[in-house]
Amino acid sequence: MGIRTAVAGASGYAGGELLRILTAHPEFEIGALTAGSNAGTELGAHQPHLRSLAGRVLAETDPGVLEGHDVVFLALPHGKSAEIAERLGEDVLVVDCGADHRLTDPAQWEKFYGTPHAGSWPYGLPELPGHREALRSARRIAVPGCYPTAVSLALFPAFAAGLAEPDVVVVAASGTSGAGRALKPHLLGSEVMGSVSAYGVGGSHRHTPEMVQNLSAVAGEPVTVSFTPTLAPMSRGILATCTAKARPGATAAALRAAYAEAYDGEPFLELLPEGRWPATSMTLGANTVLVQVALDEDAGRIVVVAAVDNLTKGTAGGAVQSANLALGLPEELGLTTIGVSP
Amino acid sequence: MGIRTAVAGASGYAGGELLRILTAHPEFEIGALTAGSNAGTELGAHQPHLRSLAGRVLAETDPGVLEGHDVVFLALPHGKSAEIAERLGEDVLVVDCGADHRLTDPAQWEKFYGTPHAGSWPYGLPELPGHREALRSARRIAVPGCYPTAVSLALFPAFAAGLAEPDVVVVAASGTSGAGRALKPHLLGSEVMGSVSAYGVGGSHRHTPEMVQNLSAVAGEPVTVSFTPTLAPMSRGILATCTAKARPGATAAALRAAYAEAYDGEPFLELLPEGRWPATSMTLGANTVLVQVALDEDAGRIVVVAAVDNLTKGTAGGAVQSANLALGLPEELGLTTIGVSP
Amino acid sequence: MGIRTAVAGASGYAGGELLRILTAHPEFEIGALTAGSNAGTELGAHQPHLRSLAGRVLAETDPGVLEGHDVVFLALPHGKSAEIAERLGEDVLVVDCGADHRLTDPAQWEKFYGTPHAGSWPYGLPELPGHREALRSARRIAVPGCYPTAVSLALFPAFAAGLAEPDVVVVAASGTSGAGRALKPHLLGSEVMGSVSAYGVGGSHRHTPEMVQNLSAVAGEPVTVSFTPTLAPMSRGILATCTAKARPGATAAALRAAYAEAYDGEPFLELLPEGRWPATSMTLGANTVLVQVALDEDAGRIVVVAAVDNLTKGTAGGAVQSANLALGLPEELGLTTIGVSP
Amino acid sequence: MGIRTAVAGASGYAGGELLRILTAHPEFEIGALTAGSNAGTELGAHQPHLRSLAGRVLAETDPGVLEGHDVVFLALPHGKSAEIAERLGEDVLVVDCGADHRLTDPAQWEKFYGTPHAGSWPYGLPELPGHREALRSARRIAVPGCYPTAVSLALFPAFAAGLAEPDVVVVAASGTSGAGRALKPHLLGSEVMGSVSAYGVGGSHRHTPEMVQNLSAVAGEPVTVSFTPTLAPMSRGILATCTAKARPGATAAALRAAYAEAYDGEPFLELLPEGRWPATSMTLGANTVLVQVALDEDAGRIVVVAAVDNLTKGTAGGAVQSANLALGLPEELGLTTIGVSP
Repeated sequence: MGIRTAVAGASGYAGGELLRILTAHPEFEIGALTAGSNAGTELGAHQPHLRSLAGRVLAETDPGVLEGHDVVFLALPHGKSAEIAERLGEDVLVVDCGADHRLTDPAQWEKFYGTPHAGSWPYGLPELPGHREALRSARRIAVPGCYPTAVSLALFPAFAAGLAEPDVVVVAASGTSGAGRALKPHLLGSEVMGSVSAYGVGGSHRHTPEMVQNLSAVAGEPVTVSFTPTLAPMSRGILATCTAKARPGATAAALRAAYAEAYDGEPFLELLPEGRWPATSMTLGANTVLVQVALDEDAGRIVVVAAVDNLTKGTAGGAVQSANLALGLPEELGLTTIGVSP
Repeated sequence: MGIRTAVAGASGYAGGELLRILTAHPEFEIGALTAGSNAGTELGAHQPHLRSLAGRVLAETDPGVLEGHDVVFLALPHGKSAEIAERLGEDVLVVDCGADHRLTDPAQWEKFYGTPHAGSWPYGLPELPGHREALRSARRIAVPGCYPTAVSLALFPAFAAGLAEPDVVVVAASGTSGAGRALKPHLLGSEVMGSVSAYGVGGSHRHTPEMVQNLSAVAGEPVTVSFTPTLAPMSRGILATCTAKARPGATAAALRAAYAEAYDGEPFLELLPEGRWPATSMTLGANTVLVQVALDEDAGRIVVVAAVDNLTKGTAGGAVQSANLALGLPEELGLTTIGVSP
Repeated sequence: MGIRTAVAGASGYAGGELLRILTAHPEFEIGALTAGSNAGTELGAHQPHLRSLAGRVLAETDPGVLEGHDVVFLALPHGKSAEIAERLGEDVLVVDCGADHRLTDPAQWEKFYGTPHAGSWPYGLPELPGHREALRSARRIAVPGCYPTAVSLALFPAFAAGLAEPDVVVVAASGTSGAGRALKPHLLGSEVMGSVSAYGVGGSHRHTPEMVQNLSAVAGEPVTVSFTPTLAPMSRGILATCTAKARPGATAAALRAAYAEAYDGEPFLELLPEGRWPATSMTLGANTVLVQVALDEDAGRIVVVAAVDNLTKGTAGGAVQSANLALGLPEELGLTTIGVSP
Repeated sequence: MGIRTAVAGASGYAGGELLRILTAHPEFEIGALTAGSNAGTELGAHQPHLRSLAGRVLAETDPGVLEGHDVVFLALPHGKSAEIAERLGEDVLVVDCGADHRLTDPAQWEKFYGTPHAGSWPYGLPELPGHREALRSARRIAVPGCYPTAVSLALFPAFAAGLAEPDVVVVAASGTSGAGRALKPHLLGSEVMGSVSAYGVGGSHRHTPEMVQNLSAVAGEPVTVSFTPTLAPMSRGILATCTAKARPGATAAALRAAYAEAYDGEPFLELLPEGRWPATSMTLGANTVLVQVALDEDAGRIVVVAAVDNLTKGTAGGAVQSANLALGLPEELGLTTIGVSP
């Protein structure tokens, strides 16, 4: 018998991707599926691609429903996780795909979210220096945001090797699933197809402090991040272009060496061969972050481009990867590095 | 009788957009249409949306064919314009949509294009300080590149007002028509749909020195530009995110004031109302550049986002705008500020 | 001074396309703009591509606001037009883009819409035999549905020439703007991109009786239509594939001759040259219907494919075309046959 | 040690999908990968999403290279398979994704392909009545075309139950990967995005005789098929709308019963619950055919809509499914019914 697993928020995009991965995972057994306003309806009405689960009826997202599982994945709107986690036993593995427990600094949380801080949990990015071990014994895991996953994994080798100035500029294009299933006019197909648009400009996006937190920890000094997210006409995928002033010694060769070393042995991180640049289509449905790095000698800047599937490695795949670690399973179990393309 | 107008390179995307605009323009009369390998075929085989011209047969791109017109628009591969222009009379207005005559510095030309410099022509960006007057008497016009159009018009007010440090980072998403009609696997629909990818990273894109040239002239000091273009799954449009360190005094209010002043009276430049951000769909088929600006106080950076249709204001519309000036016509004639959306 | 024109329902897609056309039309002067739940907000919040009107505030859709205009275009949800039209003077030209007055048979109306019939108005499809004259003196015009526009104009020549059996099968792909701006999950970009889906299958789509009405009138006998609409991942455009059993004498040559004759002199209908097939991109923003016809000898069927922009010729352009007629203006005024592509 | 497997044509879309499936399959071991003009290059240059195979160098498609494998998948242009298969041992399982051996009637082959018939092989559509058993002992398998897969599986229950007249109309929308990786202007992203177009109209598409062959066999009488394929702006997926006149007794209930019976026990065929209609996004990367059926009482027609991933169940997944059968493995091994969405 498998590991009893519940998914709260099963009718959203993150919930759907969790279920897609869990149904193919050899160890998890899918138990309760819950939802908010969609409770009482069949999963097939919301996730019609999950044929084998189509007839499952969604329960209310209630601790009583979630009890009795070994693992509970939370894919809920921000602010909903803390209360539920408190009412689940300490031995239950709770993996939160929401933002509530990602930030360690209460002041940053309050500045960007405007509510009291619920405390931080072990951060589910095993590849980031110092995090893998903490996850092996965790019973509460905060899954990183999709943009911070891409950006932190794209830039940490440059900072770890001391090759970059702590003044980062990131512009990232995201597929629309990153905005969730909220019914807003600007997310209608008619508005997004054929158009790229900016939003959350000027440092206001809530993923900014998470990037700052991760990169500052690696750099050992405060790093600023100018982050501009853009919405691209595709359902999935993030392409993050990250740049920082090069420090002395940051030759092209030194950069490649730093990335090769930092990614060595990491199953889900790959520095592409020279001359190849990431495309989000290379990562769709895969748990990988594909990276390329260049030195712009005229501008004196390091440029790192990373592609990731915001729903897979950026959310649900990353969540399962961390859960594997916490459960003592092989870290890669049930996850793939091979995308669906074209 | 109208102004006799020829289009060389009529079977490509820039040529098609020129013809779309010219057919609606009250003063131009369409004469010879020429092509390279497509010479001898009907325009309708390549530009099926131009119904009224569908039966026109494409001639060889030959000076003899182009002679006898008042205006010749060149939409040719790089390196083809100089030779043709030399053989056209000095009183003929030649408007070159290619790169051959954009750069003033032969060293930059040779570094990025690898061929001898053909000399520079008056630069067809009337909104850039100092350029409009030169265009009124020009008989040779170099139409700017699509990315430099967006970036130069997005950033010049900040530099003109002394609010930005001369160290610029630009990441821009472009629709695939910007890459032209070349038959390359990575431009196939199957590969571009659902995917954003990077290319020309690390300062290697040929539009970089053009941005440097324009911004340095406005800033009065050398400006470096770290430019990363990305390919987005849409046919048209550029969204350019441009950022530079803020200089002292660069408050949000000072920025808005600088843009308001710089764009005042410009029919095709608009600083959007506060709280609204550009989307490329707002500009499709229009000759506008729509801009928004923000100050990221945490990162100490100015962030400017601009949307433009790469084929209209970014190429063919800009070409017609400059031609209007050179011909003594109203600058806005035959051009619209209203996009086709959704 | 121009013809004073009001648009009711200005914040929707049909309203936006009306305004896009009207701003470029030499005779109309845009007066009141109204909306339902968006009343009180600026047009720019909903139609950001209409820059010159962005600051216009939307009024309530109220007869008092609409009074005092020479022409009132109604782009309202079904069931709203009759009441408003009644309260506008009989000399005001009312052009209804909604369905309320399209069907002549009250039984069909009630079967498909479930409400009492409001009566029929002159039908705004001038190209359909017998309709142009009626429109010249009309003060009330029912603009056809987008699918019926495509299908009726694609098939009437075959029926007028007696070449087709009265048993039609139509499968049409539509861009998502055809579904309007309603906030429904299946219209979110994440759901429509990368996917074609069927809806309204089995004869239930409300445009079916309109096709039956039009084709039966031309055929002089009852025509049945099996109509299946599908939703395609694009914002605009309809591609309608229409087929009927060939009657004796329906050779390929006879078919081409019938279409050539039926479309002769029609500015907005074109039978493409042999060997070319319609694509919706050829019609974007244009007021054209592009058609090709083939005879499938093995299956004994006539196959007609038509492309149309659902918002232009399929709605707003068709509305302006009919209004031009009713106002004694040239039928083509302010309308184009040239699409925006690529 | 696994089943030694070669893929000929590994740089194309069908080859890439075969490899995506084979890398996740527990029994196949990937051996030689071959290509035509891409021989000598790395797979990663053509299939960048297949990270674990990126460094594999493509060999020439030569029988000498393919020898020594237990299974050889051929994903070659039409006309290339017969010669290669002849030179492979009779005990090698050869699975041909091309058309060469699909048609049983030499006259039909010659009419549609214009070359001599190479003979027919067991047809790889196990769900079609009478085919599964033949595949269990096959050493040569002809994988069906993508459209015939969708259409044959969508319609056979209606014919098997005697509910449909043998006069079928099919209109199908396909993603661009169905046209392969050929470098043709109409397949460029700039041309396909935002556009649906028709091609192969009037009975000329080569998949037509394959549909006729399959449906006639089930119906026990000659069936005609009017087939119109259209190209939709998506990379993958087919939505086929299939209709035939209803025979007496073809009530809605009788239809559902016929489909329920015909699909009973089939792991990859599903009649959707009433009220739900297929979308191609429900099948992306999955080996399923999702079907819904309706009776249009006014038109007297059965309407069946089917969604399939043209590269998975429509090509590579179907190929693996048949190979599983021929190798005595569980038919479903390594295949999923769960799509990647949104």
